[in-house]
Amino acid sequence: MSWTVQETRFNQEQITTNGNKFMIGNGALGYRGTLEEFSKDQLTATTIAGLYDKVGDQWREPVNAPNGLATKVYANGQLLSALETEPVAHAQELDIRHAKHRRETVFAIDGGGTVTLQAERFVSMDQLNLIAARFSVTCSQPSSIVVETGIDGDVWDINGPHLEQYQSAVEGAAIVLQAMAHELRQPVVVAETLAAGSGQQVVLQTDQTIMRQLALECEAGVTYTFYKYVAIATGQSAADPVQAAVAVAVGALAAGYEALLAQHAAHWEHKWALADVVIEGDDEAQFALRYSLYQLLIIAPSESEKVSIPARGLSGQVYKGAVFWDTEMFMLPFFLHTDPQVARNLMMYRVHTLDGARRKAAEYGYKGAFYAWESQDTGDDACTLFNITDVFTNRPMRTYFRDKQVHISADVANGIWQYYASTGDDSILLDGGAEVMMECARFFYSYAYYKMDKKRFEILDATGPDEYHERINNNVFTNYMVEQTISGTLEMLALLQDKHPEAFRLLVGKLDYEADIDQLQAMLAQLYVPKPHPQSQVIEQFDGYFALEDVSLEALKSRIINRNEYLGGGSGLATTTQILKQADAILALFMLGDRFSREVKKANWDFYEPRTEHGSSLSPCVYALIAADIGYSEYAYRYFMKTATIDLTGNSKQYVGTLYIGGTHPAANGGAWMAAVQGFAGVRIGSGVVKLSPALPQKWNAMQFNVQVQGQQFRVAVTKSEVRITSAETNRAAQLFSIGGAEVVCEAGQTVVQAY
Amino acid sequence: MSWTVQETRFNQEQITTNGNKFMIGNGALGYRGTLEEFSKDQLTATTIAGLYDKVGDQWREPVNAPNGLATKVYANGQLLSALETEPVAHAQELDIRHAKHRRETVFAIDGGGTVTLQAERFVSMDQLNLIAARFSVTCSQPSSIVVETGIDGDVWDINGPHLEQYQSAVEGAAIVLQAMAHELRQPVVVAETLAAGSGQQVVLQTDQTIMRQLALECEAGVTYTFYKYVAIATGQSAADPVQAAVAVAVGALAAGYEALLAQHAAHWEHKWALADVVIEGDDEAQFALRYSLYQLLIIAPSESEKVSIPARGLSGQVYKGAVFWDTEMFMLPFFLHTDPQVARNLMMYRVHTLDGARRKAAEYGYKGAFYAWESQDTGDDACTLFNITDVFTNRPMRTYFRDKQVHISADVANGIWQYYASTGDDSILLDGGAEVMMECARFFYSYAYYKMDKKRFEILDATGPDEYHERINNNVFTNYMVEQTISGTLEMLALLQDKHPEAFRLLVGKLDYEADIDQLQAMLAQLYVPKPHPQSQVIEQFDGYFALEDVSLEALKSRIINRNEYLGGGSGLATTTQILKQADAILALFMLGDRFSREVKKANWDFYEPRTEHGSSLSPCVYALIAADIGYSEYAYRYFMKTATIDLTGNSKQYVGTLYIGGTHPAANGGAWMAAVQGFAGVRIGSGVVKLSPALPQKWNAMQFNVQVQGQQFRVAVTKSEVRITSAETNRAAQLFSIGGAEVVCEAGQTVVQAY
Repeated sequence: MSWTVQETRFNQEQITTNGNKFMIGNGALGYRGTLEEFSKDQLTATTIAGLYDKVGDQWREPVNAPNGLATKVYANGQLLSALETEPVAHAQELDIRHAKHRRETVFAIDGGGTVTLQAERFVSMDQLNLIAARFSVTCSQPSSIVVETGIDGDVWDINGPHLEQYQSAVEGAAIVLQAMAHELRQPVVVAETLAAGSGQQVVLQTDQTIMRQLALECEAGVTYTFYKYVAIATGQSAADPVQAAVAVAVGALAAGYEALLAQHAAHWEHKWALADVVIEGDDEAQFALRYSLYQLLIIAPSESEKVSIPARGLSGQVYKGAVFWDTEMFMLPFFLHTDPQVARNLMMYRVHTLDGARRKAAEYGYKGAFYAWESQDTGDDACTLFNITDVFTNRPMRTYFRDKQVHISADVANGIWQYYASTGDDSILLDGGAEVMMECARFFYSYAYYKMDKKRFEILDATGPDEYHERINNNVFTNYMVEQTISGTLEMLALLQDKHPEAFRLLVGKLDYEADIDQLQAMLAQLYVPKPHPQSQVIEQFDGYFALEDVSLEALKSRIINRNEYLGGGSGLATTTQILKQADAILALFMLGDRFSREVKKANWDFYEPRTEHGSSLSPCVYALIAADIGYSEYAYRYFMKTATIDLTGNSKQYVGTLYIGGTHPAANGGAWMAAVQGFAGVRIGSGVVKLSPALPQKWNAMQFNVQVQGQQFRVAVTKSEVRITSAETNRAAQLFSIGGAEVVCEAGQTVVQAY
Repeated sequence: MSWTVQETRFNQEQITTNGNKFMIGNGALGYRGTLEEFSKDQLTATTIAGLYDKVGDQWREPVNAPNGLATKVYANGQLLSALETEPVAHAQELDIRHAKHRRETVFAIDGGGTVTLQAERFVSMDQLNLIAARFSVTCSQPSSIVVETGIDGDVWDINGPHLEQYQSAVEGAAIVLQAMAHELRQPVVVAETLAAGSGQQVVLQTDQTIMRQLALECEAGVTYTFYKYVAIATGQSAADPVQAAVAVAVGALAAGYEALLAQHAAHWEHKWALADVVIEGDDEAQFALRYSLYQLLIIAPSESEKVSIPARGLSGQVYKGAVFWDTEMFMLPFFLHTDPQVARNLMMYRVHTLDGARRKAAEYGYKGAFYAWESQDTGDDACTLFNITDVFTNRPMRTYFRDKQVHISADVANGIWQYYASTGDDSILLDGGAEVMMECARFFYSYAYYKMDKKRFEILDATGPDEYHERINNNVFTNYMVEQTISGTLEMLALLQDKHPEAFRLLVGKLDYEADIDQLQAMLAQLYVPKPHPQSQVIEQFDGYFALEDVSLEALKSRIINRNEYLGGGSGLATTTQILKQADAILALFMLGDRFSREVKKANWDFYEPRTEHGSSLSPCVYALIAADIGYSEYAYRYFMKTATIDLTGNSKQYVGTLYIGGTHPAANGGAWMAAVQGFAGVRIGSGVVKLSPALPQKWNAMQFNVQVQGQQFRVAVTKSEVRITSAETNRAAQLFSIGGAEVVCEAGQTVVQAY
């Protein structure tokens, strides 16, 4: 089975999407899949997780570090660049097993002969601030080769420039480029060391670059190889970032490329051992799913709880590098089941940004925590009130993502509670998770209204996942998530009171929460949650939805005048119809697990599926999940594949107007894992039990994957007829499983097999 | 002082606005100010109050009756029409004292010489289904004159055709055209009789017309005169409408023109005796105000409580001939003070349409009565969800006039309570008014939400008078009007229980209202009404208004791309700014009378006035009223004049896109009276007292007007320094007045003078 993504043709048009597709990263840094000779015009980027910057009134977004891998090669004075000369041969390749990027390009040179450039690079999973690269030149006939390699500080910015006050220096073996991030006055430092076997070196400095120039007289057929070690440090990561970066780059030079690569690869082997899902009988699905997991692994914050995963991963500045609900809803399950430490980091990021959420709640006159729709370092909301430009008038369009998508606070609270339920690790509650949950519950109490004559609490004026219908009342997803938040918070409080009475006392005292507990109980008892219609079994997505125009998706699309027009917003075409952007009621049904019958799920899937535009990459996986649940296996497979291939095919919107919105799609990547493991294998973590309800796609003979639950590790193998579960040797206790309804207990270190 | 509006030049461009300006009518019929030779292309119309018709999916609108005054004159074979030939001389004239329309036009004819056409007409105030006309022809040299006069059934329709199945007949002296209104299958009959001194008559019938052809050999200098009597009857007004119309037309023929005119004029003398406001020292204001009152008097339903006054009066089918809040808010005060029977009819119209309001409330899931935003005969809402076309996309635009302008029910309830408070006539409560008030109050209880942590009821998701900001929370106008509705209803119930215990018992039993009374008391005690800001004293128009962009009106207008673009709706330019369409908080301050200090009123006027676009003709009079109250006399005068002259200058929007929205402006006409009597004279009916706080404009030396209160009639004369009140001989009791704070009692039949 292949672990390699490859392109064997150079295509100018694919530069941007290949930048995403061939991404490498380690959760702290992301490096786009561009070629060594590219610059900001080709969207080269070294994205630093967690460092944001704002210039003037523009959008705040992550800082791109100077590009330490910038390399241009001249043969007999001729620049060898795929942008300038059609290569004789070209291959770009990504090894997703070890997260290595390779390219090999053969250029014909003036006066005859060819020069072959090869390059390999990785963003170290062992040293998170290090990027290493090997570069080689081979000439078919003797040639004068000049290599310019160093640090290019003229970086791609969407709303920059973010870096200023550039300074360059030679520090021993290292060259160093330092700049200052505009808003926070944080130094951003890139240091580079070079191991070149021979040749003459000169250092060239300009305003924003520091480059080494190597001149080589190359013999025919001899391969000249050099190695680059690029270290990145910021004022946030080091007290003296210059010293820190230089130390790493110099240390790497001493260690050598192969040793660094081996350490890097060992980490990746470990990661795959935990994360991999093996599919038998369907190579295409296997690769697409692995690739999706790869995309998640390169952006997972394994060592920091101060950052989470942005909606476009570390693939650039798109969507302001902001963290959305995507993380809790579509990525958290994968990490919960395969690497709970990352899951914990993701949720601790929400603990660290609680004050921002409190500020937002207060800004709107509410109590508690209203999490940012677009969250960055402080938790203040990066989302603007005018997010989209009207294509007909070129005016900024008022949207309500920021003010009304209140479910974000429920998604966060629910994520923390899921983390606890899945891992049994109540330390997160003591470390601030309990406070987050309470503040989210309190927010909803202050957001909700009571309807006297119906004797119920309602959630009004909200926007659900289907953003085409803004400012609606009693959205099914929102109301159920609020219910989960309050019931989870009350359970959490009971648990705390029981197991950690002192922590409970402190918390209740700190937040003056005594009265709120009664209020939350009252609200839970009387919260209105939309129910299936008595006849049709369909749950109305929000008050009045059924009364909207029932138009087909095709007919709606035929009304589009401008291909970039937004279907939501003030006057969008979908707003007055039943057409929805993405799974909403269906996502609620997924979140609610067994609360509704298969019959209800089927009725809702049948109703909502034809009405869903899938205007979000978060949508297809949800339809796959419920389709698998209700036995719609063809649909489930089709939606799974759509989700799993999104970053391979690049079939997603790249631009809205002049705005680049491309990049990777971590939520879809996480959704692919969910569709496979939670959909086809039907895994659900219940209270004291792990349930499996397998429904493998026709092509699949078997699938294997790991489940971590309550700190124990299980290997699960599912065939068409049975489930085999192996409890890891290191486990301490028996675990109850329910397989297609049949309960089996798996003792520590044992294997059980259960037909279904 | 002139009582005449005149144009002495024929201008093609003014045909439409002159149609409004020269309107005549009697509350049951409206006849547009067009010339006799005009047809539907010039928007001729005989509007029947209260008969509506809907064709297919189009808007429902009033029926235009066939034009019984249609007359064409040919001299030596040449059509004499201002549309074809530039007249030698032309005058069009309206006598507003007796509501007579006149024209005189001199045409040069081929072969030399002139023919003078003169015509006069009136819509009888004595027989409400009769229109009478005198027509004469004078030739400067002998000419062959052919007159074609009769009934033209090819009528102007906006969303027609409303009439079908035309039948014509000669019934004795009358010619008759009958047609069927499409939706309700109501016959619409026009009968005409003609008194022509001489000449030969032939009757010509086509599909939609029946015309008499008169051939005359006219001598030079001799005036040939004939008289037309046109009667209109429908299936709604008569069991046998043909017989009824013929009887009226034949009866009129027998009575003769001068006798009919004398009866008509006597009614008008009586109306003016009650209604007139005399202004000394400002002829321009005098005429504009009288003209405004004229416009109200020609559309007042003096004999029917089944119709009210549409937003464009009886000037055509614009705005669907629908009754808006305009009536209660801007016209009711004039009738309350001058002709309480009309005021009673207007409010009884709401009693008769209560079931429609109940249906609307039920449609939206509420209890009680949610009155139609656009009310016609049944009280069902004629307002559509897509009222406006987007000029950029040509798509229908979703607006929320129908669903969210809930203050309409408060305006209605308040209107009934005002009627009672001003007249003391509690029969309206027993005749259904009490039920209306209770149902409106109940509607608001079911519409309101309770905010637990703030311990208050709020009115959410409403649209106030400022329609540029839709779906807002706690609109100052709406919330205060709801408060008035509930407090008024509770007072009304107490009164009923005290004075009419049996009626009270029946009503409470009928509506199962016992529990509601407690609920209303609780709601009144805890209803949130926005208060003046502690520093600025400005009352925020709705939750979040102060946070909107604070842009100048001029700057906002500079952003307009298309002159017809709507500033509200989904993406309108004003929606995200503080620019408002029309008085909203300021109207609330007017409605609340003395509840807020002059300082608060001033602060709000100063704040809101520069932010008001006056996109509605209902706006300037409100600014005039408060300006007069706070001593801004220049502003008050300017806004008064703007209001009072609207239908004289024709300076109002005539078209939006291709949609004609012109017509008369009864709300502004009523607003002109309010600005004069309630503004400059400062008249307010209090509990047991009539207050006056005069603040005459600089130019005005004095003003005189009548006030009717508690069934008694008072003549009020205000000068710059004193108020003189004469109690009518027919009055029975003393009345307390408060003049500039000083209390004086005016005994029945006496006169008191009080300096201020």
